[in-house]
Amino acid sequence: MSEKVDIGAQGFLYPMPMTLVGADLETGPTFMTIAWINRAEMNPPLVMAGLNKAHATCAGIREHGEFSVNLPSIDMVAITDWCGLSSAKRGANKAAPFTVERGTLAHAPLIAECPLAMECRVERVVDLGTHELVVGEIVATWTEQRFLDESGKPDVTRLRPFTLTMPDNRYWAVGEQVGRAWADGRGFEPPAEG
Amino acid sequence: MSEKVDIGAQGFLYPMPMTLVGADLETGPTFMTIAWINRAEMNPPLVMAGLNKAHATCAGIREHGEFSVNLPSIDMVAITDWCGLSSAKRGANKAAPFTVERGTLAHAPLIAECPLAMECRVERVVDLGTHELVVGEIVATWTEQRFLDESGKPDVTRLRPFTLTMPDNRYWAVGEQVGRAWADGRGFEPPAEG
Repeated sequence: MSEKVDIGAQGFLYPMPMTLVGADLETGPTFMTIAWINRAEMNPPLVMAGLNKAHATCAGIREHGEFSVNLPSIDMVAITDWCGLSSAKRGANKAAPFTVERGTLAHAPLIAECPLAMECRVERVVDLGTHELVVGEIVATWTEQRFLDESGKPDVTRLRPFTLTMPDNRYWAVGEQVGRAWADGRGFEPPAEG
Repeated sequence: MSEKVDIGAQGFLYPMPMTLVGADLETGPTFMTIAWINRAEMNPPLVMAGLNKAHATCAGIREHGEFSVNLPSIDMVAITDWCGLSSAKRGANKAAPFTVERGTLAHAPLIAECPLAMECRVERVVDLGTHELVVGEIVATWTEQRFLDESGKPDVTRLRPFTLTMPDNRYWAVGEQVGRAWADGRGFEPPAEG
């Protein structure tokens, strides 16, 4: 560890995908800004999210057992950040800036302005302390033809999502393609065993 | 949902952070390529990872209750992808290409070539089926002074990590800064309530 320094236990992943997680409250749909989220299982298709239990959205997720994961584009940085700064518990109507649509589930409000959105059914909730780890099964993924590539897959250069780094708290666009997964490693030669 | 199309249940987050998760086997340290990972809790600092149980690394994590999360730079695309294509169970020595160092834990092998690496102690393992959701508490975050900004925080433009998109299976650099978190939303004016 010659040149290495230990900067402590508050380490983060670089970078983290930005989303707006939606749920229904008694007052209507609401959305919270979430970067601690990812896929967790291939089949069934599960997502995992670390959510601060204090948020109103968490109560909505627990009540209905359904939620949405909406991916905003870089045109939506300010509104996405506003959803993280404002609070439904303090009276903010966080659905007001959006066109809210419904897919197949009754309580997974979808943001029409987001280029991609998933509807999820809660599979389990694991209590971690301040946060809870919500595992959800994806039941539908909504996007538009204009965001798909020639093979019908979402194209990140058309979705134009953005990412977060902590603890410096900055948002970043996606950059250049630097390789192909399950492909570029074929050209790598590991060192011969001694 | 006028223009929206449902492309099915296999939705993904865009983009996902690339890591090499390390553990000790009887034969020595090994690393697997993991993108389904993120933070899950602030205090204690927890990470969550969705890991295919078939991998040798998972057995090492379960045996020792410790693992590492190493963030490769874009200079390490081919070697990182190779770690995903090759298999310790089929005899590949996935530590051979790296300089392996130790921090404070006995069984969290760290890759010296990675600009940032975390040591983690298993907090719990949740069985999801094919995958397991490993929750780990970060005990140390190793980096180098040259990767830190003026305020002592890791600088993503110096770390130069890369990300993954699925199912198109492409790697991407981090792009331009597009905003500041918990800041840019202050300038957003939500529509007035009707």
